[in-house]
Amino acid sequence: MNETKESTIMLGMMWEAIEIIESCPEFAQLIPEVRSNLVYAKSDAKTVNDVMAIDGRITVVNGRPHASGHPKFGASSHMARIILELMKVNPEIRSGINIACNPELVSFLEGYCKKDGLKIVKVDRSNEPADSRDVEGKTMSWKAREAVRLAGGKVPDMFYEMGDVGKEPITTMAGKNPVEVAERAAKLASEFSCY
Amino acid sequence: MNETKESTIMLGMMWEAIEIIESCPEFAQLIPEVRSNLVYAKSDAKTVNDVMAIDGRITVVNGRPHASGHPKFGASSHMARIILELMKVNPEIRSGINIACNPELVSFLEGYCKKDGLKIVKVDRSNEPADSRDVEGKTMSWKAREAVRLAGGKVPDMFYEMGDVGKEPITTMAGKNPVEVAERAAKLASEFSCY
Amino acid sequence: MNETKESTIMLGMMWEAIEIIESCPEFAQLIPEVRSNLVYAKSDAKTVNDVMAIDGRITVVNGRPHASGHPKFGASSHMARIILELMKVNPEIRSGINIACNPELVSFLEGYCKKDGLKIVKVDRSNEPADSRDVEGKTMSWKAREAVRLAGGKVPDMFYEMGDVGKEPITTMAGKNPVEVAERAAKLASEFSCY
Amino acid sequence: MNETKESTIMLGMMWEAIEIIESCPEFAQLIPEVRSNLVYAKSDAKTVNDVMAIDGRITVVNGRPHASGHPKFGASSHMARIILELMKVNPEIRSGINIACNPELVSFLEGYCKKDGLKIVKVDRSNEPADSRDVEGKTMSWKAREAVRLAGGKVPDMFYEMGDVGKEPITTMAGKNPVEVAERAAKLASEFSCY
Repeated sequence: MNETKESTIMLGMMWEAIEIIESCPEFAQLIPEVRSNLVYAKSDAKTVNDVMAIDGRITVVNGRPHASGHPKFGASSHMARIILELMKVNPEIRSGINIACNPELVSFLEGYCKKDGLKIVKVDRSNEPADSRDVEGKTMSWKAREAVRLAGGKVPDMFYEMGDVGKEPITTMAGKNPVEVAERAAKLASEFSCY
Repeated sequence: MNETKESTIMLGMMWEAIEIIESCPEFAQLIPEVRSNLVYAKSDAKTVNDVMAIDGRITVVNGRPHASGHPKFGASSHMARIILELMKVNPEIRSGINIACNPELVSFLEGYCKKDGLKIVKVDRSNEPADSRDVEGKTMSWKAREAVRLAGGKVPDMFYEMGDVGKEPITTMAGKNPVEVAERAAKLASEFSCY
Repeated sequence: MNETKESTIMLGMMWEAIEIIESCPEFAQLIPEVRSNLVYAKSDAKTVNDVMAIDGRITVVNGRPHASGHPKFGASSHMARIILELMKVNPEIRSGINIACNPELVSFLEGYCKKDGLKIVKVDRSNEPADSRDVEGKTMSWKAREAVRLAGGKVPDMFYEMGDVGKEPITTMAGKNPVEVAERAAKLASEFSCY
Repeated sequence: MNETKESTIMLGMMWEAIEIIESCPEFAQLIPEVRSNLVYAKSDAKTVNDVMAIDGRITVVNGRPHASGHPKFGASSHMARIILELMKVNPEIRSGINIACNPELVSFLEGYCKKDGLKIVKVDRSNEPADSRDVEGKTMSWKAREAVRLAGGKVPDMFYEMGDVGKEPITTMAGKNPVEVAERAAKLASEFSCY
């Protein structure tokens, strides 16, 4: 086989990840009000247009997770900015997904991460400097940098936040590629449904 | 033609409304982070299961509004509770849609309503009693009642809110049926895009 | 409730029928290579643009029947012409669906119709006059008229045909509205799956 | 990047091809009554379950080509068997698509192939041996072998057939991968629309 374009492989992995998530009904319980998105950045990504995401996000239809549209470059702003920031610290971390954040889920995730040796940190948005707030791009970058700082300079596997005025609290999961991220999300969703 | 079931007519009107919204690319600008939903209550609705809504809400795909799933009874919780509450005041108001709420849009809507003779009010969530907060069902009912109170005991055409911790601010539009609501939303979205 | 437009009620009934068919996995076995379409004509229909049909037809996805697009006026040519012709004989017959036609299914349908008191006839396309063949509009009208002739001047509940060069053999079912037609098709599909 | 699974790359290429086809409105004119399918065989494919195809085929929605479902192994029978047979002659030819076949299109394709140096042959189904007919698997394999024979022992770029009783005439295009096949199909469709 000739050398395959990076974007072709990325598209293949995004769709593999979508199949994993759509095949996991329990993941529907983890989808926040703002809906989940799954992103995957090119290895040399510089802007949100270098980051693939699901057009229309992942919603719930017939009680199951459902990708609204197709994976596309530039289809995410929030999650894309977070991953671009994390890549500055660890270029191997090119994918992520956002899920809900509530006391019950946080308690489960803390235990889950301890058991599996994963790193999870809690970001307090009230620590965000005034000049970063309300500037969507800036605020996402700040959140990612703060998570790295709290994790001792490394990219944590997950981080969640306390809500702020007008902002739904969100948990972010990061990983190397969307298949890895989707598999972890599906496994975790299945365990949480029995929690 | 024999007498048609109420649910058949409701389904027809929901789909007519969906076609109107999906044919209005400008409406994409009004969809909030939590996504829009359009609801339609039976004339004798008592619970959220008597209220039709779009399964998976209305998201944005290819830059255009897109109904994720089909209209179904029970597919909404938030918007359904608001309409159930409004119907107690005016049983003719059986449909509604939620859209974004930001300073620019609010300024436009205030002017739009003045011009068209529509009633719009602003709900301040910080007035919500402590025992209502954080109880999703209760908080939506409170918001609806507060909007009616601020409108002098009548159901206003629109109401918006100041955000609260963890809650995205939202504008709610109410009307008699989803076609009326969708037509108003599409007209308003087109004008806002030139604002 | 004010008087509802005929097209709104038609849209509601088309979607009710789609839900019935999509909820019947066994119907997938009845879908022919050319795919099924379900049509519904206005009470005063004159042309194919007065006949609602499923845009993109009904195909099979994940082993289940799936309406490719939405019901739309003018979305069918073949089935629409058949119903327009049948309406000339009985204006109450405004809906129809096409399904597969093979020896096993025909044998089942003959028995099913006998049991349920339904009229089914077999059209022999080789009887079609030369000047009608290969003219799509004409050939569909001929088929409908021939079915009526074979049924003694009345619209039969079903008719099937022997194939012709380049034409897949098809069974056509007719009825008053798409809900009636879909319910019969789903019931029949369930029984055929145990045949 | 670690070595990527063949199925991931195949999935990526299938979706790239789908985007090409869905972005070409003119391709809608080439979709036959039985709908088009696009297939891609694993490099060591032995059965239809080793061949990826579009679940539900490619239909026409809103006047544009539309993939009904997702690419899946085993989602095609007809086109998959043809490609499996062609691979025996040339293992590099792992993808194909079926389009319409009518006198106007055939006349265009003959000219197009002459101009572009492509090989096209016409298969006469009436030459098919009696023991192959009506056995779907066999008949597809025979058609593929006959096309190779007529092309002098090589896999032709395209082949079309004269219809048979109950069978819509079809043109088949073959190529190395779905992106190559989709690009050729889209280019050809655009030129045919001006023919």
